[in-house]
Amino acid sequence: MTSKPKTAISPTRAEDYPEWYQQVIKAADMAEKSPVRGCMIIKPWGYAIWENIVRGLDRMFRATGVKNAYFPLFIPLSFLEKEAEHVEGFAKECAVVSHHRLEQGEDGLVPAGRLQEPLVVRPTSETIIGDAFSKWINSYRDLPLLINQWANVVRWEMRTRLFLRTSEFLWQEGHTAHATKEEAGARTRQMLDVYARFVEEYLAIPVIRGVKTRAETFPGAVETQCIEAMMQDRKALQAGTSHFLGQNFARASGIKFQSREETEEYAWTTSWGASTRLIGGLIMAHGDDDGLVLPPKIASSHVVLLPIYRKPDEKSEVMAYTEKLAKRLRAIPYHDRSIEVEIDDREMGGARGWEWIKKGIPLRVEIGPRDIAADSVFVGRRDLPSRKKESVPTDQFLAGISELLDEIQDNIFQKALRFRKKHTVAINDTGAFYDFFTPGNLEKPEIHGGFALAPWCGSSECETRLKADLRVTIRCIPFDKKQTTGPCIHCGAPADQQVVFAKAY
Amino acid sequence: MTSKPKTAISPTRAEDYPEWYQQVIKAADMAEKSPVRGCMIIKPWGYAIWENIVRGLDRMFRATGVKNAYFPLFIPLSFLEKEAEHVEGFAKECAVVSHHRLEQGEDGLVPAGRLQEPLVVRPTSETIIGDAFSKWINSYRDLPLLINQWANVVRWEMRTRLFLRTSEFLWQEGHTAHATKEEAGARTRQMLDVYARFVEEYLAIPVIRGVKTRAETFPGAVETQCIEAMMQDRKALQAGTSHFLGQNFARASGIKFQSREETEEYAWTTSWGASTRLIGGLIMAHGDDDGLVLPPKIASSHVVLLPIYRKPDEKSEVMAYTEKLAKRLRAIPYHDRSIEVEIDDREMGGARGWEWIKKGIPLRVEIGPRDIAADSVFVGRRDLPSRKKESVPTDQFLAGISELLDEIQDNIFQKALRFRKKHTVAINDTGAFYDFFTPGNLEKPEIHGGFALAPWCGSSECETRLKADLRVTIRCIPFDKKQTTGPCIHCGAPADQQVVFAKAY
Repeated sequence: MTSKPKTAISPTRAEDYPEWYQQVIKAADMAEKSPVRGCMIIKPWGYAIWENIVRGLDRMFRATGVKNAYFPLFIPLSFLEKEAEHVEGFAKECAVVSHHRLEQGEDGLVPAGRLQEPLVVRPTSETIIGDAFSKWINSYRDLPLLINQWANVVRWEMRTRLFLRTSEFLWQEGHTAHATKEEAGARTRQMLDVYARFVEEYLAIPVIRGVKTRAETFPGAVETQCIEAMMQDRKALQAGTSHFLGQNFARASGIKFQSREETEEYAWTTSWGASTRLIGGLIMAHGDDDGLVLPPKIASSHVVLLPIYRKPDEKSEVMAYTEKLAKRLRAIPYHDRSIEVEIDDREMGGARGWEWIKKGIPLRVEIGPRDIAADSVFVGRRDLPSRKKESVPTDQFLAGISELLDEIQDNIFQKALRFRKKHTVAINDTGAFYDFFTPGNLEKPEIHGGFALAPWCGSSECETRLKADLRVTIRCIPFDKKQTTGPCIHCGAPADQQVVFAKAY
Repeated sequence: MTSKPKTAISPTRAEDYPEWYQQVIKAADMAEKSPVRGCMIIKPWGYAIWENIVRGLDRMFRATGVKNAYFPLFIPLSFLEKEAEHVEGFAKECAVVSHHRLEQGEDGLVPAGRLQEPLVVRPTSETIIGDAFSKWINSYRDLPLLINQWANVVRWEMRTRLFLRTSEFLWQEGHTAHATKEEAGARTRQMLDVYARFVEEYLAIPVIRGVKTRAETFPGAVETQCIEAMMQDRKALQAGTSHFLGQNFARASGIKFQSREETEEYAWTTSWGASTRLIGGLIMAHGDDDGLVLPPKIASSHVVLLPIYRKPDEKSEVMAYTEKLAKRLRAIPYHDRSIEVEIDDREMGGARGWEWIKKGIPLRVEIGPRDIAADSVFVGRRDLPSRKKESVPTDQFLAGISELLDEIQDNIFQKALRFRKKHTVAINDTGAFYDFFTPGNLEKPEIHGGFALAPWCGSSECETRLKADLRVTIRCIPFDKKQTTGPCIHCGAPADQQVVFAKAY
């Protein structure tokens, strides 16, 4: 161990990936567990990422005609029961509100004012929004109805992990209603494509688009489409889902309309969501053994300025130069915002730079008396090794910073893409498939696990069996799947599709 | 009644103000009651106003160094109990979560998985955020800590009214911790001033800044500062509050720090909030008998384009001109966003224009073949009578639209200011005070009610008595109060301050 290069995060990814993940979040000061079971506190450095996700996705939604609205936090129990599969899917993880006040009891306050009908804290809002839609929609002229909600939801979890699986999380849920099956189907795919574009272009994470198997379909949906990303432990993370609900929820909630032909029809609906889980994916896709690595387009901030001075009389000159540089940087537009700048003038030596490396900020800029004399800055990039810093004339740095950030963004994406390609393998042999997913020799961990593209006969029995044997699931049936691929990887029956298998979060 | 001019909203403000309020919301399609007791659904036209409030306030908060974060929806009962006055203030209106799943019972699903400690859905977050602060703060170097949260909160209400009083509402709550009493005091006032500036500059509602009496102080606070606005029924609406919490919550939550002098001290904290209630205030301050009137800086949208054509062959020309105009308008920046444009090409005659009047959009622009021939547009302003429309050359309209919107914004503010001045009266005589607040002759309603500036001795007994007699409360002790004003309006004892009395929402 002594010869191993020192890293800012301990353990390293190779040593203990799950613990590395927790340590990265802690070192970057992004979030922490709260005293409320399963709920997290999202701290400013983590929340800023969420705000950037919200801004980016929201603009994309609007461009497709979607409007935002807000629906109640609580859902009456009777609403949840309207769709049988749906309630079955969520009953085991519902926070239930039973009382509406507190009274002084013998040992302190106790719940009082029992509700006639218990309320469930929304795990998702299909049923309550469906009820509203049934009132808002009368005629084909009211369609399509395209609504999105940014909200908190609660799904009671026993085993939680920051961002990835928490009892309360933040998300958006889109809900649309259409006059025809075709239009609803097209919208389902359109929103999946929005997610794919956003996750690739903003979060710099390459994704595979496809359809979930029946077993993995959203409770109550006809079809669930998803995007799947590979993390650095080669497990899959579902990064967004778009559901074609057919007429299931329209029937459950009575969403009917008078057609052009004056017949009464049930509407066709969709729903689609993405959540704070994306931040977990961001950490696991790009972080390294020195901590978080933030793609510039989603970064909490772009640049930290680190003034350096030894003598007190240098301080005012260095600080003045720093403030002026910050002002010039903040005036530069960068995609959907301006360059965001931190100034860190704490006197704490080399530890200061490492703090910002751990926080994943794309650019670190040191400014000392010698830099000022040369009218230049000393720039470190988070996507390059920490020692590889470069002196750049200040004007040149300012003129080129947008291109530089775009270059970093692209570097991070390409690295993740290379990683995924390296660990995505077509497998047709059952033995090789089992080998691929059996944790093996630690000296050569790279040959075990990843995405396996393998033929599947379509039977849920094979799917269940592989899950039981290897804890591997079918992540999706990709839209661009290979047809006629040979015998099913499990049962050997003829399979006409190659699907993506992986262990998953 | 037959000679009365027809209005778009029935009843009028004079006929039935509370019902007028509900009808304005309905006609503008802003919000509606939900099937969940006391919770509302905020529809897109209403929610867009909230999004504009969020953007405007958020930018002002950031400019003072505040950062956003997110804390749990649930608060353990034991946390709420830490501050005695605080729990007393909220116990009667808490939604209590008692179970974490649902099970099949004899007559359908029933709550199961009882929680060991009940959780309260946050009515406000001082206690849970205080707990986090106690962990985050160790030294004076960690101070000030300036945090804001955008969130939903729940206060169970028996009598609800859309936007003004709902069981669930959206808000922001700022929470700060400081090393000194003076700094916390200054922050309390700084954030109140942010609210005042925002409400006056964006919502175009003039406000009075001041301090609440002890009886009206936030449960657990040392002092509550507030801004109070006058509605068109001359009642007051509290539009934002900023609380100086002293060391009360710091003691309750253990927020301690090591001072520069190496002593251990409790921090001084503040909290401050504004909510979707502001939208209710907006409606009641500016709406008229034709519906909503939106100040441009906060409007859901700025301009609606209304293409007009009679013959089918005119349609393509008119629509092309309309689309081009929309594109040019959307490229014009207006304060913190761009000009937002609606196009309404529904074929529904004159009713179409009225729909947009009821929705309060600042500008209506009609475009017909004759306008196009003259390269002009026919413009109606929401702040002027609906018939007073004007033909304006299109280029001139485009060049002047920002100034025009600013003029409308100012008009709306000045009108509200005139109204408040007209209905704010200094009263020193007890009889006149009782007359002022006694509902009187409907033919001259303008002489009854409004803001009464009257001397108060400072006794809560007088305050309680006036409330019991007249349902009038002290809205605030204004910062710019008159000193030495004569005998208390209730008891006649010497009073050294003139305070604002009013009936209130």
